[in-house]
Amino acid sequence: MKFKVGDSFSRSREVTDELVRAFAEVSGDHNPIHLDDEFAKTTRFGRRIAHGMLSGAFISAVLGYELSERKIVYLSQTMRFTAPVYIGDTVTTTATVKGIREDRNIVTMDTVCANQNGETVVTGEAVLMLLT
Amino acid sequence: MKFKVGDSFSRSREVTDELVRAFAEVSGDHNPIHLDDEFAKTTRFGRRIAHGMLSGAFISAVLGYELSERKIVYLSQTMRFTAPVYIGDTVTTTATVKGIREDRNIVTMDTVCANQNGETVVTGEAVLMLLT
Repeated sequence: MKFKVGDSFSRSREVTDELVRAFAEVSGDHNPIHLDDEFAKTTRFGRRIAHGMLSGAFISAVLGYELSERKIVYLSQTMRFTAPVYIGDTVTTTATVKGIREDRNIVTMDTVCANQNGETVVTGEAVLMLLT
Repeated sequence: MKFKVGDSFSRSREVTDELVRAFAEVSGDHNPIHLDDEFAKTTRFGRRIAHGMLSGAFISAVLGYELSERKIVYLSQTMRFTAPVYIGDTVTTTATVKGIREDRNIVTMDTVCANQNGETVVTGEAVLMLLT
């Protein structure tokens, strides 16, 4: 296996209004907390936030595209949404190898999303099987 | 709280080629297993599969939009990807209330995605806080 514990992969994306609206279309999640400024003002957040699962999509990109491996099976993912992502934030998603089962080609990775201020917005763990 | 244990919410979506390509754009996950027929033929799946996290996006839609509640905080999600979703499949995502902590307005839900043959493709659990 070409990975070792501690190897780390990451990507940053700006969470634009356009991106949040595109995620609403793709997912079908049109909750107004993501899309409607007036509604969002009435919530504890005070303004629109991105879908939590948009960060899940960013994790998918790191695991599916930033790793050099292309033939992988995504076995599981956990996510704790620890802070909101606001429109205009830049989210950096980092996956770090934390465990390897060589006998089964299974890699466990810490997956963390953080905003431009370094605040963690998502923590969790991914488990992948490498097919190559 | 208006929910009770056993309450269930669901939505079905067809996983079209267009939808998978849109998810690739939104997520940034351009892994060829999702997008390239020739590459996909060389994998254990034999043909293109959808991004696992597209099912995560469908879970977002059920939690964020099929529930009558609009003011929710998404606290956590787990997902086990138990079978592939192929282009052309129809995925039905169902969230079922399995636990309620009235004192903190926290609802735990089983979240399951199944294909048109009734095969489970994702299992997991969501935890939400209701703000209303």
